[in-house]
Amino acid sequence: MQALVYPSSQKQYRSGTLHPEIRVPYRKVGETEIYDVSGSYSDPHFVSTDDRELPKLRKTWIAARKPNSTQYTLAREGIVTPEMEFVALRENVSPEVVRLEIAEGRAILPANIHHPELEPMIIGSKFLVKVNANIGTSAVFSSLKEEREKLQFAIHHGADTVMDLSTGGNLSEIRESLLRASPVPIGTVPIYEALERVNGRPENLSWEVFREVIIEQAEQGVDYFTIHAGLLRDHIPLTQNRITGIVSRGGALMAKWCVTHQKENFLYTQFDSICEVMKKYDVCFSLGDGLRPGSIADACDAAQYAELATLGELTQRAWKHGVQVMVEGPGHVPLHQIQENVEKEKALCQSAPFYTLGPLTTDIAPGYDHITSAIGAAMIGWRGASMLCYVTPKEHLGLPNLQDVKQGLIAYKIAAHAADLAKGHPSARDRDDAISRARYGFRWQEQFDLSLDPATAQAYHDEALPAASAKTAHFCSMCGPHFCSMKWSQDLARKIEQPRTSP
Amino acid sequence: MQALVYPSSQKQYRSGTLHPEIRVPYRKVGETEIYDVSGSYSDPHFVSTDDRELPKLRKTWIAARKPNSTQYTLAREGIVTPEMEFVALRENVSPEVVRLEIAEGRAILPANIHHPELEPMIIGSKFLVKVNANIGTSAVFSSLKEEREKLQFAIHHGADTVMDLSTGGNLSEIRESLLRASPVPIGTVPIYEALERVNGRPENLSWEVFREVIIEQAEQGVDYFTIHAGLLRDHIPLTQNRITGIVSRGGALMAKWCVTHQKENFLYTQFDSICEVMKKYDVCFSLGDGLRPGSIADACDAAQYAELATLGELTQRAWKHGVQVMVEGPGHVPLHQIQENVEKEKALCQSAPFYTLGPLTTDIAPGYDHITSAIGAAMIGWRGASMLCYVTPKEHLGLPNLQDVKQGLIAYKIAAHAADLAKGHPSARDRDDAISRARYGFRWQEQFDLSLDPATAQAYHDEALPAASAKTAHFCSMCGPHFCSMKWSQDLARKIEQPRTSP
Repeated sequence: MQALVYPSSQKQYRSGTLHPEIRVPYRKVGETEIYDVSGSYSDPHFVSTDDRELPKLRKTWIAARKPNSTQYTLAREGIVTPEMEFVALRENVSPEVVRLEIAEGRAILPANIHHPELEPMIIGSKFLVKVNANIGTSAVFSSLKEEREKLQFAIHHGADTVMDLSTGGNLSEIRESLLRASPVPIGTVPIYEALERVNGRPENLSWEVFREVIIEQAEQGVDYFTIHAGLLRDHIPLTQNRITGIVSRGGALMAKWCVTHQKENFLYTQFDSICEVMKKYDVCFSLGDGLRPGSIADACDAAQYAELATLGELTQRAWKHGVQVMVEGPGHVPLHQIQENVEKEKALCQSAPFYTLGPLTTDIAPGYDHITSAIGAAMIGWRGASMLCYVTPKEHLGLPNLQDVKQGLIAYKIAAHAADLAKGHPSARDRDDAISRARYGFRWQEQFDLSLDPATAQAYHDEALPAASAKTAHFCSMCGPHFCSMKWSQDLARKIEQPRTSP
Repeated sequence: MQALVYPSSQKQYRSGTLHPEIRVPYRKVGETEIYDVSGSYSDPHFVSTDDRELPKLRKTWIAARKPNSTQYTLAREGIVTPEMEFVALRENVSPEVVRLEIAEGRAILPANIHHPELEPMIIGSKFLVKVNANIGTSAVFSSLKEEREKLQFAIHHGADTVMDLSTGGNLSEIRESLLRASPVPIGTVPIYEALERVNGRPENLSWEVFREVIIEQAEQGVDYFTIHAGLLRDHIPLTQNRITGIVSRGGALMAKWCVTHQKENFLYTQFDSICEVMKKYDVCFSLGDGLRPGSIADACDAAQYAELATLGELTQRAWKHGVQVMVEGPGHVPLHQIQENVEKEKALCQSAPFYTLGPLTTDIAPGYDHITSAIGAAMIGWRGASMLCYVTPKEHLGLPNLQDVKQGLIAYKIAAHAADLAKGHPSARDRDDAISRARYGFRWQEQFDLSLDPATAQAYHDEALPAASAKTAHFCSMCGPHFCSMKWSQDLARKIEQPRTSP
């Protein structure tokens, strides 16, 4: 695996005020401060100790906390936790804004009390748009080592959270390994492990097995669970005229269970019991959209919106228990219906954070679904989605490898940043302006260093002009030395300014 | 160069009614008809003759036409030309709609009377969103052979028009070679060749040299010219506080000329004379946006919009001469300002077709600007832009090679198609639905064949599961054989349907 290094980047920390022991990481490139999720791995002091166990920075905060409380219950009591101040410093907002958004349910701070290695982050429409990377084994491919590499690769490329969707190998061991190595929140879909425990037979799933799984996963430190509790028995017939049926694995599983047993979804009937488990560890809900559309044809249909209404009901029930909630969204949606999805979610789910998969804006480009979906992701992020689940180029075709993880993440960091700019996030444009100034000044190295993928930017430039002198040259291979608009433009600026300075 | 073959695709033709000799190509994959710009190269009858000169299908149409007429003047006289019927058949609309849109200036049909090899196409907001690919040499790299390969590569991957932006090598020879090999309209920026004729010294440019160049290029058969006639002397000071100044090469050139000579842009003062030349050959204007923003910071500023207002004035002057017009647009624009750009263009330029470069929605991802800009391109296409000029991954870094051309085109075919879906173009969803049905039916080969890049889709799938049996398997490596939602969903559909058929 290639060494993960940010060129010309300095790891620095901001300190807390309410909680002076807080140290919030960021990266500084030139004068530009970059939000940093890469954890201690990018801190030279950490690497030089050669001790790869992450510092347990939340240990004392968790110890000082009263039992059976969550960031939501604490926020409603008016308490600014160290985690809240941490994210306030990260996002350049006041701790009070963070507290209020969490208290009102418009933001979540996923941080299991058994995940002390976590560097707190926040998901909500008032904050920077976040990106999730899915990793995990399948029955066809499974390697603990490779999943850990994917985790580090993902956070190196800016994943704000990582979901472990493993369905092959020793699930518990893989998850434990990822949690202990992760400075970002880890999410899972517990029904996958429940299915494994009943030997892959959906009809044998039960509340008892599921309860056992979520307790074990919460004990390990998982920060949020996708739970498909909103798919009701009555919704299933609404999918019958779809082109692509039910494409969520959790959704298809629970539908199969309901039809086989002719019973209501036990994740729905046992929802209060699930809340009790999750509250104890402060695990967040990611209410799963089991009936999300799997094609443009199926977007925004009765099945999708019926489930969304149930997710709204469950959001309020979770809040009554003091459990934090975000709501999952599609999927495949044409551009003109994206805004409607956000509006419906806000209305039906009381503005709980919306966490969407893309959406893909066309079905015709397998192999390029990181692009078909980055278009939809940018749009939905601008309109108010709080976190975007990435899609890799392998979507619909196979399990992503390291390079696919990278391609997916870069496409989604672009989408999230485009959304931040459009939302007018106060400091979002700093990096754009810095890179544009470097570009106009022909400071090539600075342009590379500030970019999302410095190595690739430099490699593309060097492909034609590898000489060191080309890094300060006032041209590139696109236009050559005598045909550069920016060079002419600079000559011009000097000419126009001349008469001013010497009248 | 790899063989350019569409797997499982049949080249077919539709016939004309008003003009029975018309044969409009399309490709059929299964039952799905795909708009086809690849020309005779994908016709097995053509290839088997081993004669690589393209048929001159417009020869008799041009011969029958009265002198000094354009598609615009003919449309206004109520005449449906063979070219108009051709595009009507291509777009599945009535010839009268085509005629009316051209007559009203809302669409153009770029087809120089000296480009008989051209298969007519239309650019306008009522029609499918089109994609342009820029190719061409620079002083650093120049190879006639490679540019011809890029042309064929571009049309193979769906370029609706190609611009030859060569600035190195024998410009006339390269252009002649591309025109004779191109079934799609070819555009140029004549000021580049004019600059070469004055030895690269912008201050030595003159109307006389420029006139000579446009006559020669029109004689060769160029279908549209980018001409930066809207950049006025008074606009130049408006760019002084920009971060990236003037980033259009034509714009920077003309600004330099104006400032050096303290005179008005000769492309503006000689505009009527330019129109006379262009009318004679029916060359279309692509009114250049010399002051387009080159960074998010500079988007939508006074300089950009001042020039756009002048382009609106020139649009009406060109129409008075009977010349067809489209208007070029930005550049770099954040998501929330994209719609405003389309609205201003429509208002100021009387709904002449808008032809935009991207726009890029952030500056922070050099190496991935095909993605930063595909996001903006999809959005602006949905809102009414008629043609999208692609951006390759090499933008800002170097001259694109064959693979960059392909990556840029696929990103833009995605953007254009996402826009067509959002605009509700009547047949746009056919391909999405067909591929989704194939996907849900586990007909892998059909899914690959229908995709924008069949070879890549198949390669990604086969990376994990290369066996022939995997092409009919009801799973892929992402979820493995026992964890596929679509398989469960199909089992379920059978279960639900059971009670219905046997009551």
